[in-house]
Amino acid sequence: MADEKKQVEQITSMAEDFAQWYTDIVSKAELMDYSSVKGCMIFKPAGYAIWENIQKNLDAMFKKAGVENVYMPLFIPESLLEKEKDHVEGFAPEVAWVTHGGLEPLEERLCVRPTSETLFCDLYANLVHSYRDLPKVYNQWCSVVRWEKTTRPFLRSREFLWQEGHTAHATAEEAQERTEQMLNLYAEFCEKYLAIPVVKGRKTDKEKFAGAEATYTIEALMHDGKALQSGTSHNFGDGFARAFNIQYTDKDNTLQYVHQTSWGMSTRLIGAIIMVHGDDSGLKLPPAIAPVQVMIVPIMQTKEGVLDKANELLNSFNAAGIRAKLDSTDKRPGFKFAEQEMRGIPLRIEVGPKDIEAGTCVAVRRDTHEKLTLPLNDLTEKISGLLEDIQQNMYDTALAHRDSHTYDAVEYEEFKKTIDEKPGFVRAMWCGDRACEDRIKEDTGATSRCMPFDQVKLSDKCICCGKPAKALVYWGRAY
Amino acid sequence: MADEKKQVEQITSMAEDFAQWYTDIVSKAELMDYSSVKGCMIFKPAGYAIWENIQKNLDAMFKKAGVENVYMPLFIPESLLEKEKDHVEGFAPEVAWVTHGGLEPLEERLCVRPTSETLFCDLYANLVHSYRDLPKVYNQWCSVVRWEKTTRPFLRSREFLWQEGHTAHATAEEAQERTEQMLNLYAEFCEKYLAIPVVKGRKTDKEKFAGAEATYTIEALMHDGKALQSGTSHNFGDGFARAFNIQYTDKDNTLQYVHQTSWGMSTRLIGAIIMVHGDDSGLKLPPAIAPVQVMIVPIMQTKEGVLDKANELLNSFNAAGIRAKLDSTDKRPGFKFAEQEMRGIPLRIEVGPKDIEAGTCVAVRRDTHEKLTLPLNDLTEKISGLLEDIQQNMYDTALAHRDSHTYDAVEYEEFKKTIDEKPGFVRAMWCGDRACEDRIKEDTGATSRCMPFDQVKLSDKCICCGKPAKALVYWGRAY
Repeated sequence: MADEKKQVEQITSMAEDFAQWYTDIVSKAELMDYSSVKGCMIFKPAGYAIWENIQKNLDAMFKKAGVENVYMPLFIPESLLEKEKDHVEGFAPEVAWVTHGGLEPLEERLCVRPTSETLFCDLYANLVHSYRDLPKVYNQWCSVVRWEKTTRPFLRSREFLWQEGHTAHATAEEAQERTEQMLNLYAEFCEKYLAIPVVKGRKTDKEKFAGAEATYTIEALMHDGKALQSGTSHNFGDGFARAFNIQYTDKDNTLQYVHQTSWGMSTRLIGAIIMVHGDDSGLKLPPAIAPVQVMIVPIMQTKEGVLDKANELLNSFNAAGIRAKLDSTDKRPGFKFAEQEMRGIPLRIEVGPKDIEAGTCVAVRRDTHEKLTLPLNDLTEKISGLLEDIQQNMYDTALAHRDSHTYDAVEYEEFKKTIDEKPGFVRAMWCGDRACEDRIKEDTGATSRCMPFDQVKLSDKCICCGKPAKALVYWGRAY
Repeated sequence: MADEKKQVEQITSMAEDFAQWYTDIVSKAELMDYSSVKGCMIFKPAGYAIWENIQKNLDAMFKKAGVENVYMPLFIPESLLEKEKDHVEGFAPEVAWVTHGGLEPLEERLCVRPTSETLFCDLYANLVHSYRDLPKVYNQWCSVVRWEKTTRPFLRSREFLWQEGHTAHATAEEAQERTEQMLNLYAEFCEKYLAIPVVKGRKTDKEKFAGAEATYTIEALMHDGKALQSGTSHNFGDGFARAFNIQYTDKDNTLQYVHQTSWGMSTRLIGAIIMVHGDDSGLKLPPAIAPVQVMIVPIMQTKEGVLDKANELLNSFNAAGIRAKLDSTDKRPGFKFAEQEMRGIPLRIEVGPKDIEAGTCVAVRRDTHEKLTLPLNDLTEKISGLLEDIQQNMYDTALAHRDSHTYDAVEYEEFKKTIDEKPGFVRAMWCGDRACEDRIKEDTGATSRCMPFDQVKLSDKCICCGKPAKALVYWGRAY
């Protein structure tokens, strides 16, 4: 038992120290490792495989939505970054600068891309001449660099992986449509693949992207009651088009500026998976995104026929498109169980001599720890059904958690008390003034997460200043 | 006719100016564009889609060969790059240096990875302790930066996309096996997917990778008779392991150094596709890697029933897993034909009112320009067969070209004359001395491409100095 205990003891419990629990999972599930470069992380195989599945499924949704992939340079000349005023102010303080190429100093400094709006604008200015050249709906999968002071695995690091979509349209209406389309696509992806419910809404001016006219966001609630911004979609209007002179001739032969959008999701999503679904046994992966969905653990594997049967199951699962693995190492079963749970594999199949004799096996669900005895006949179909159940149950559980941690407030004292005592989202009315947002942040540590698309009127007055309210806002402490 | 002529006239013919022909294809097939960052290129949708297909198929082969993907930081601290002497000497003159993060200077300069041996070694030194931790067979897909002075689309640019595999093994034998396994995998990939035959062999010491004990290569012959190194696989022995102190305890409880390999292929392969298969009508993509395999061009598309039939074909192709598109824009058919040829789409299907009435369509092969009249019944199966034929024919044609441009020489005068007058590979014996390699380069511009695995003895004497020969070498001018 020593080994199993050792492995379990190494995880701090969620209730005791959520931050340490998170760090423990990242390390024990072998998702990431620290590198010799301060603030930069290594994606280990188990962590990178989750990103590969996110990429694969999200990219398929992109392609159906008419998105084309490209790859832009890693570097941005300083003069190009400076073309749009708000944008450079937002990013210049946190970029990494290349000053030497080989043995010689560069004529102009290059920044390592923190985001690529400026490069896409530069490209569109060259490519777009006529209405026939529109729309452009390009995306790239790449890494970006932001020189953060404090970092945390997946949530904030100096380099992270993401996709960034950048589009150009003939009209403001079409740009707005694309902005919302991609936000909705992100929400659908999170709900369908990651089993994470999200609140869709618009960011306040304070929280919007540097250079955007409007920023839309999906906000998820973590197990500790903190919010995580999980994807954003920006409408730039024609601001960048004017700064970069991206013009086209319309059908009436008049010169017009294009209207642009950008949208992105990142490896942060892996942090969200950990913090929405994980428990004290470790990571818990939704089957739709799990690199390994089923781990087969043979019991008394040296007995005749056990490994044969286990391999037979493995082959039938894989043939049916179930991502299965067999752990036939010489570790003891208890250790293998703890390891499979730590790594978040959704389903474990135990099969030993007695099971084989009875024509059954034991299935253990990672989400509920439920043990089921299943007949070996038609097992594949049953397993597929179980994986679907697990996916649905994980979503339902996350939704119930979010809903039971979403509170309404109409008085400021009640608002502050709720933020302080009940971790979660607090919904309250707001007058639209930056001053109230700043004061709420100062008083409670909470920020405005979004003005949700589903607006309801809790009262007529701003929660903070009492002046007439303009919008319902989700507030919360956030990562 | 003006438009078609315009498009055709814009390509320089291969015979007239091969370099310009290449540049024209890159531009007219919309594969790449120049960026505002000197020496860095933009991968446009048509170019990036080829890379996506290369990634997808090569990665599937990797996974079958037990390779696990990871992602390592973009930056390498100067002190880490310097740990292996030969390696730093090889790369330091051509790396880009980051000296500032945000507004502050860094304590230690970071280089933007030109390759990641040093980072993987650093990781393995942390991860590997016991023989149970071996082997490690990791790979990453990423971009790398080398500050080249002269650049050419796909062939040489300051930033390019590639994969780099890095492994650690218990024994020298196992490392050598993996080195050869990956080289063979590369050769198989090039032949099967890219329809490019390659010569497999070992590099001379002069041409080997900085820090490697032995470098193996696959060499392809371009249409102009120049060689292109298309993939390499290196055996590091325990050199890096000693520099980075990567040790493990073996079964007898003795401390041992690991043995390492690395191997990579890059977006250069797209340059190879262009230069092996292309012709004066443009790009010619092998069906196995073509993002679009079949372009359907409706004739007299405004006539009733034509677009319906074209869409019906499109759907039946896509349902059968054939990557097809329909060009229903208002351009004239002749223009669409030229465009499809320029973009290298392997097969064109023309369907108009007369065809429909006759129950047929016209198929035009991109490889042979052959026109075929095909019945609309069972068309999908026929098309699949045609695509296979095209793939095979493209390989056979490339192989015949290479074989008819591979010459043997046994006297130095004859050797120099062949290099000068007959572009291609020249096979000749070599004594093993660097001095002869240097002299051959000086006299002819040709470099040693590889010592092929298939050794034959053309004579007993070195082609250059006449001393006893040690190996047959493929020589050639190269990109």
